[in-house]
Amino acid sequence: MVTAFAPASVGNITVGFDVLGMAIANPGDEVTVQFNDRKEVRIVEITGDGGKLPLAAEKNTATVAIISLLQHLGSEQGMDVTIHKKMPFGSGLGSSSASAVAGAYAANELLGAPFTKNELITFALDGEAIASGGRHADNVAPCMLGGITLIRGYNPLDIITLPVPDNLHCSVIYPEIEILTKAAREILPKEVPMKDAISQIGNIAGFVSALYQNDLALLSRCMSDTLAEPYRATLLPDFEKVRNAALYGGALSFGISGSGPSMFAFSDSAAKAGQVGELMKKALDRQGVGNMVFVSKVNEKGVVII
Amino acid sequence: MVTAFAPASVGNITVGFDVLGMAIANPGDEVTVQFNDRKEVRIVEITGDGGKLPLAAEKNTATVAIISLLQHLGSEQGMDVTIHKKMPFGSGLGSSSASAVAGAYAANELLGAPFTKNELITFALDGEAIASGGRHADNVAPCMLGGITLIRGYNPLDIITLPVPDNLHCSVIYPEIEILTKAAREILPKEVPMKDAISQIGNIAGFVSALYQNDLALLSRCMSDTLAEPYRATLLPDFEKVRNAALYGGALSFGISGSGPSMFAFSDSAAKAGQVGELMKKALDRQGVGNMVFVSKVNEKGVVII
Repeated sequence: MVTAFAPASVGNITVGFDVLGMAIANPGDEVTVQFNDRKEVRIVEITGDGGKLPLAAEKNTATVAIISLLQHLGSEQGMDVTIHKKMPFGSGLGSSSASAVAGAYAANELLGAPFTKNELITFALDGEAIASGGRHADNVAPCMLGGITLIRGYNPLDIITLPVPDNLHCSVIYPEIEILTKAAREILPKEVPMKDAISQIGNIAGFVSALYQNDLALLSRCMSDTLAEPYRATLLPDFEKVRNAALYGGALSFGISGSGPSMFAFSDSAAKAGQVGELMKKALDRQGVGNMVFVSKVNEKGVVII
Repeated sequence: MVTAFAPASVGNITVGFDVLGMAIANPGDEVTVQFNDRKEVRIVEITGDGGKLPLAAEKNTATVAIISLLQHLGSEQGMDVTIHKKMPFGSGLGSSSASAVAGAYAANELLGAPFTKNELITFALDGEAIASGGRHADNVAPCMLGGITLIRGYNPLDIITLPVPDNLHCSVIYPEIEILTKAAREILPKEVPMKDAISQIGNIAGFVSALYQNDLALLSRCMSDTLAEPYRATLLPDFEKVRNAALYGGALSFGISGSGPSMFAFSDSAAKAGQVGELMKKALDRQGVGNMVFVSKVNEKGVVII
């Protein structure tokens, strides 16, 4: 019996719509696998989902990832899978990816680790596709590998792990409101002004340079999004209030995590990240919006066996 | 009497439309300055321009840059300026920027160097604006500072010098045809597909990472332009032929320099860059198009006193 923990992740990281993502320390999902003699992969139990997720193996990102892995091996091995949802789903924190990654990683370990983490990404993407309708890697890659990852391209998949500045800390807040990923996708325009595209390539180039140079002042100057945030922020009634709270608290930056509703701020110390987290929480509390706050450094390990 | 040499530069570098540029070893412009007693900046002579450039100080990028510098100092000092155009203009190699940078740098030296290179950029941009209608820094910055530069933003001007991989060599070809910068601007769409913007942010992020990692294989994978090249290549009748020649010769990448008509290729050795230069030249010779080829490493010095 093997259990894997896969962390939550922040997609886009403001400057890298659809191409950047990073793992955080917590929350995360746990998936436990063990062999069965039935030549099928089945879900034994899901905890923490309030009964909302289907138990059919072909409908869960964790089991779809495991089935993809076994098919690639040409194996008929059966597995019993238990999924512990320990993070909110529909949160913009990569919950579906975390289950897919934890499932693929746990199953791989149980089988004697025939695949590397990089190789496992393709199976996790098959799982992720069940939830999001596409093989999006901006949560799967950082969740699997840890750190800050760049998905340079998909044909073929080209993933680059970027360095993490020493003092970079992250405060994430999940407001308990529902944003459908589909709505967050549909609100985006099909075309963007050329000047916005130019602004964005300047900012992401500066961001990557800042990571290599350990230059948090430069990082802070770059953290602006012209492609997705101006549209998606309109789906978040308290976006401005939470942002103002974060920046008042001294955050280096503030933005939406993935397609939302979670939001995140970077800070240059643990103390400041804690303070920023508290101020963001107060801002939502004042609006009567239930919320959860997570403060950590970037998680450089990614998925682990526990 | 002081003379400065300012090198040609390649704007955009394929992945960084309007935000990246790099200096090459040659060609370049030379500007000589000396004090006069007339309290005015005047052009004594322009060589190498075939008589095409106006002698009025307020119409030349070199002298406009010098006048801007003197105004900033509140100085009424007069200067006699001689401009040696040693590179083709209208080439997409930053000729107007080279004169502006050489002028500002030479005048600064003559005055006892009151400004740093970074500070001089603003005066050179005033000069460049005479030629291009805007304070575009993607040629001015690398020409002044050398190396590969990122213009992250303009308000305020935020210029980042990126590292240059050890073995990176550049082959530049100038076809003797005329492309008006205005036409090259106007052919660009005002809006671009979101998917093209996403592709471009992935590629420039990978490119910057490749520079820091000294990873020329990654650099090669990133060198694709969805924002400008698909449109501007239509203005270059031999674009496909020259590209095929460069890639056949083993180039890492191929693209348009600035708004063209010059084109450039990256290679991973001096020998390959030489061979790529020869093959590109043959491709244009075969079409009966006059051309000049320049092969060098990235010029990391920028403008110098000679």
